[in-house]
Amino acid sequence: MLADPPAARNLAVDRERLWSTLMETARFGGTLKGGIRRLALSAEDGQVRDWLRAAAEQSGYACSVDDLGNMYIVRAGRDGARLPVAMGSHLDTQPTGGKFDGVLGVLAGLEVLRTLDDAGIETEAPLCLVNWTNEEGSRFAPGEMGSGVFAGEMDRGFALSRTDGDGISVADALAAIGYRGQERCGERRFAAMIELHIEQGPVLEAERVDIGVVVSAKGQIWFNGVVAGIEAHAGTTPMPLRKDALLAFAEFALAVEGIANAEAPAGVGTIGVVTVGPGSRNIVPGSVRFSLEFRHSDQARLEAMRTQALDAARRISRARGCDIVIEPIWSKDPVRFSPQVADVIRASASGLGLSNRPMVSGAGHDACAVAMKVPTAMVFVPCKDGVSHNEAESATPDDCANGANVLLHSVLALVGVATK
Amino acid sequence: MLADPPAARNLAVDRERLWSTLMETARFGGTLKGGIRRLALSAEDGQVRDWLRAAAEQSGYACSVDDLGNMYIVRAGRDGARLPVAMGSHLDTQPTGGKFDGVLGVLAGLEVLRTLDDAGIETEAPLCLVNWTNEEGSRFAPGEMGSGVFAGEMDRGFALSRTDGDGISVADALAAIGYRGQERCGERRFAAMIELHIEQGPVLEAERVDIGVVVSAKGQIWFNGVVAGIEAHAGTTPMPLRKDALLAFAEFALAVEGIANAEAPAGVGTIGVVTVGPGSRNIVPGSVRFSLEFRHSDQARLEAMRTQALDAARRISRARGCDIVIEPIWSKDPVRFSPQVADVIRASASGLGLSNRPMVSGAGHDACAVAMKVPTAMVFVPCKDGVSHNEAESATPDDCANGANVLLHSVLALVGVATK
Repeated sequence: MLADPPAARNLAVDRERLWSTLMETARFGGTLKGGIRRLALSAEDGQVRDWLRAAAEQSGYACSVDDLGNMYIVRAGRDGARLPVAMGSHLDTQPTGGKFDGVLGVLAGLEVLRTLDDAGIETEAPLCLVNWTNEEGSRFAPGEMGSGVFAGEMDRGFALSRTDGDGISVADALAAIGYRGQERCGERRFAAMIELHIEQGPVLEAERVDIGVVVSAKGQIWFNGVVAGIEAHAGTTPMPLRKDALLAFAEFALAVEGIANAEAPAGVGTIGVVTVGPGSRNIVPGSVRFSLEFRHSDQARLEAMRTQALDAARRISRARGCDIVIEPIWSKDPVRFSPQVADVIRASASGLGLSNRPMVSGAGHDACAVAMKVPTAMVFVPCKDGVSHNEAESATPDDCANGANVLLHSVLALVGVATK
Repeated sequence: MLADPPAARNLAVDRERLWSTLMETARFGGTLKGGIRRLALSAEDGQVRDWLRAAAEQSGYACSVDDLGNMYIVRAGRDGARLPVAMGSHLDTQPTGGKFDGVLGVLAGLEVLRTLDDAGIETEAPLCLVNWTNEEGSRFAPGEMGSGVFAGEMDRGFALSRTDGDGISVADALAAIGYRGQERCGERRFAAMIELHIEQGPVLEAERVDIGVVVSAKGQIWFNGVVAGIEAHAGTTPMPLRKDALLAFAEFALAVEGIANAEAPAGVGTIGVVTVGPGSRNIVPGSVRFSLEFRHSDQARLEAMRTQALDAARRISRARGCDIVIEPIWSKDPVRFSPQVADVIRASASGLGLSNRPMVSGAGHDACAVAMKVPTAMVFVPCKDGVSHNEAESATPDDCANGANVLLHSVLALVGVATK
């Protein structure tokens, strides 16, 4: 890590300009409730991409696009032989998404480049701002698609052939908005990447901490679950003769809570989808279908949660004469971000007088994929009530600017400032 | 109670004839899966009513119809001044109903009359077989309509003005199938009524008992419930910061089970309908909507269950920071059947060598309404696996005949056999 030279030491982004680009681009897919509906590779996604390319070209940065539609905006450095340091996130949103998830990371990167221009600062290595394609996975599943193919975690052909609800493929959707580039996704190399993002959780706000230095991301295991009991007449079946699937499920749900509580705060467990059959007021439930997911930053503890859940299912099945089965359908190992890049972020935040703490990301991000290939870490800023994936998603101009300043000083430390 | 005279002592219904009328009439609305779809006052209900009227007239019984469509088939007694003893149930079914629920009580009554004809037995008081209109309440809610108006429990104008999903009223539907009679419903008087019915529960089968002597019917309280928690990101919200509506609900469901278990077997508690919002795999549930019902044969205990449920909702709401609200939407007091009529039933069953036990009906029946006005009790026979309101509903020819024989000897004891 290079120390900031005097020219860069007091550098700060333009808080108002950053905020106005956030508000200006929020019109592409803007909703009546103040959120954004900007599905990956939709017309609205095309509009915001055009806006970003125009902004880049106006400042004289090179803008290129790869065959997954990832956009690379390069501000040249003094030493063209050095690998660029990347800043990146995504401009697509959930169907009823907010103005900050992903967007902040891209527009703060643009603001970093503009701030350097304004200060007349040349960097040693180049900087590259990346807009990764389809992080959300709402229109084309799965998400983290552009970053996943870049990192070699997802197959290119698989990604390009995914279709939306109308049968349109990613390849066709890229072509339709003019973002099917020639460059082969994954060939470009970076020295490091930093992704700035809203926390999407309540911790920073609750603890009144300015900056989260994200050192890892939780692994996940997803299950589908079924409870089989016996349907019965609610009036005529005495309690001791019932095999009530809902009650077996209720006991299992509380067991899942106990398993997760024992791993707090690093581990979480959630049942989000529940369907009770036959769903009649007068019939003792005969079946329950449910989703279950566990997340943990430690792989061994994640496996332990799985084992404990299987044990609980067996125990409750036996005790109640109902059959609880959970079947794993997807999993992802925990990601350990680059300790070196995380150290740079921590030092930059502290240098700016911003309170900070190490954090584990509970959600998936482009950085989780890119980290497989490039030394990567993340910067989190607080968001209101921890709400995200929601039109009510909100972050303050100060928190956005704090995050952008940490991003600025972190990438400066990584690229180095050229002495005049 | 009169003892059976010798002429009637060994009398038994014709097991095969009873079974063949059950199977023959099952074609009116018969389904591919062997059940019946014969909604109240539908064309199929009209067909089975016509069949019953023809059968009655063929045997020389008077058949009349009141303004609610209740059918009264009278076999005259020696003493025209005495009030008739009634046998009654219903011929309408659930949308995917079985061949026995209600139907057995009416057709066994017909078999009783035919058995007396065959044996040349004259009774002192008249016998009256009743087919009560719309017990199920599936097409026109609420159910127990004909019996409810008869007993003065339901308003005549309210009942006649109820409409089905197509906006057709009960009054119009009665006229359409030719069963809007002139007699004012409720003016007819009975000395007693006995309803034979399948148990619709598993107790008799489980205990291998032939006959249930139904001494009362459970009261009911129905609630709608809502749990309000806080939606949150399943990956980023640590367990201690969650207000998970599903987990609060799960704890409440188990509390309801505990309340009902403490009242077993007389009390039951059931949550049959559950909707979890927003219902996404990655979102901590923010809301749960559910149904709750308690039933108990003792009014004071039913009230105690209500109080305990409210206490549990308050306690869990406080502990979890979620808000559980249950709102009563309907209730019905327990019904105590006539101990005298129940004694007659018990004595008849024992006299026939059939094992029997006193029972509490968990479901509603026409007898529950009629009991408000006429000394009434019920006879239960086992049904397979306790299944009812289902096309798989099943009862054996022997159990049906056992029930009909108990009905025969019980009404004979009540009406008295005329000596020649």
